[in-house]
Amino acid sequence: MIHILLTVLDLGGTFVFAISGAAAAVKHRLDIFGVMVLAFAAGNAGGVTRDLLIGAVPPAAIANWSYLAVSILAGLTVFFWYPLIARLNNPVLWFDAVGLAFFAVAGTQKALVHEINPVMAALLGMLTGIGGGMLRDVFVAEIPVVLRADLYALAALAAAVVVVTGQALHVSPIATTIVGGVLCFALRYMAIRHGWHLPAAWPPRGQSGELNKPDSRRDNRNS
Amino acid sequence: MIHILLTVLDLGGTFVFAISGAAAAVKHRLDIFGVMVLAFAAGNAGGVTRDLLIGAVPPAAIANWSYLAVSILAGLTVFFWYPLIARLNNPVLWFDAVGLAFFAVAGTQKALVHEINPVMAALLGMLTGIGGGMLRDVFVAEIPVVLRADLYALAALAAAVVVVTGQALHVSPIATTIVGGVLCFALRYMAIRHGWHLPAAWPPRGQSGELNKPDSRRDNRNS
Amino acid sequence: MIHILLTVLDLGGTFVFAISGAAAAVKHRLDIFGVMVLAFAAGNAGGVTRDLLIGAVPPAAIANWSYLAVSILAGLTVFFWYPLIARLNNPVLWFDAVGLAFFAVAGTQKALVHEINPVMAALLGMLTGIGGGMLRDVFVAEIPVVLRADLYALAALAAAVVVVTGQALHVSPIATTIVGGVLCFALRYMAIRHGWHLPAAWPPRGQSGELNKPDSRRDNRNS
Repeated sequence: MIHILLTVLDLGGTFVFAISGAAAAVKHRLDIFGVMVLAFAAGNAGGVTRDLLIGAVPPAAIANWSYLAVSILAGLTVFFWYPLIARLNNPVLWFDAVGLAFFAVAGTQKALVHEINPVMAALLGMLTGIGGGMLRDVFVAEIPVVLRADLYALAALAAAVVVVTGQALHVSPIATTIVGGVLCFALRYMAIRHGWHLPAAWPPRGQSGELNKPDSRRDNRNS
Repeated sequence: MIHILLTVLDLGGTFVFAISGAAAAVKHRLDIFGVMVLAFAAGNAGGVTRDLLIGAVPPAAIANWSYLAVSILAGLTVFFWYPLIARLNNPVLWFDAVGLAFFAVAGTQKALVHEINPVMAALLGMLTGIGGGMLRDVFVAEIPVVLRADLYALAALAAAVVVVTGQALHVSPIATTIVGGVLCFALRYMAIRHGWHLPAAWPPRGQSGELNKPDSRRDNRNS
Repeated sequence: MIHILLTVLDLGGTFVFAISGAAAAVKHRLDIFGVMVLAFAAGNAGGVTRDLLIGAVPPAAIANWSYLAVSILAGLTVFFWYPLIARLNNPVLWFDAVGLAFFAVAGTQKALVHEINPVMAALLGMLTGIGGGMLRDVFVAEIPVVLRADLYALAALAAAVVVVTGQALHVSPIATTIVGGVLCFALRYMAIRHGWHLPAAWPPRGQSGELNKPDSRRDNRNS
């Protein structure tokens, strides 16, 4: 039961992140193969890193061809129907938010299944969520949206904490998965649409000249 | 027999990629130690990643000092005879193409030896080929040539598919290695010299202003 | 005994590198959570990579919560007292130099404890030292200071060689740790303050226009 849930979430997150990777590739005018590579990297980097860290080798994305198939499907979808996806405002941003929610809960569940202690399981869930987006942005030579965007890693961590707490209280994993995932997406929604953000430390004068837009618009840099 | 072939290809690929890493370091005016670090990183990142993913720990490049020796040799060669190498047009690009061919076939062979299934073995071969170049370019803060260049990952994949198919048909690994390697290099040659390329999706108007050179010249950005 | 020393050095290096990561995050105006993520990444990337390569899975930074606690402490320190830290000239640079010294010796000791051969243990020590700083700089889309800065990887390697040689001669690890660490910091001090540097190969004319500052000032780019 929990294994089916895990697989569905993992593949769902892979698909959505692969979409975001492919959309970033199309925006940078990469060719069809570059689109596929970036789709696979964005969709699987988080999960592969998690699996390496918990010693689950070879990682699911290598041992099991369905991750590859899902990534290629996402890449082809974006390549051939990009105008459709682009009609969504900020497509990378929204698919990224959905993928973040899927991966944060799935990564935490998988770490718990492997008997990692709860605090670290939550962190690994967060890492699964943010890993794919980080690699995607590093590859197109941008500062990862993970670090720039408002409530990003925090949203992933919130979802992971819900899952971990739920397990400690013996709540059904399906319930905690839904609550955690929705919480994560809701936090990102509020950040993107309504400018919710955490405080930023201001560097001393003379170093901040490069960035003088209002905080709530920082997200738009990656849209 | 297959093990000797594997080692020769692996060390050959390491040497050639290390040359490309060192040449990139010299172009960015790094000092002699930075040249060595980038030579080692470019020469070994692909193989180390492959070994981590198939669970061959510690990776060959760490357990066996010959990879280090070959990388240092390549770094010193470039450092002291850069003018010689620079007389080749686009030195990074050509050494990169040779290394790609070596690594794509060697990576696939090694994955097959470790009994990874054929589809994933081909992908791991591709990854071995493109990993070193990706890390090299990320370190000098450029979008990896892997993603920008024409027929790059595709050439690596073509070589990997030749090796995998050859094994399924019980052809001698030496034959498939030569055919695969030559095919990979030939595809890159046609891309660099004659502008062969795959179609790119065009992003909606208003986002593409930054890039308006003809497609076939994109490769030159990394030369 | 050696285990206590190892842990103290590892946590000390983590703290200091986490400070440097957090300071880089504040300079780029990231929010408090981004500061924490970059603090953790800079503080632990080198050690995690080393542990993956020597097969010590799950890595210490994942299995043991104290690395996380130390990273968060460093992140909070920087976030709330940045003006204090900024009064130091080039805070990232100096904390980076101290962390480099701690990690280079600790990484080498740990590799020796895991019975890696001496040459590779020295290299892994160097990698532990430079890994965190590399990831920190890649995440803020800069060419890693590791590659740009004078005597950087060399200083880490010098410390590692002292530790390895000391063990071969049966000198007390505490003595070699202190000598190696001080040597590493001293080399960086001379590089930063007095412009010591290794020779750089000059690329052929026409490619070097972008960089025409004197060599000894290259370090300041990351200050």
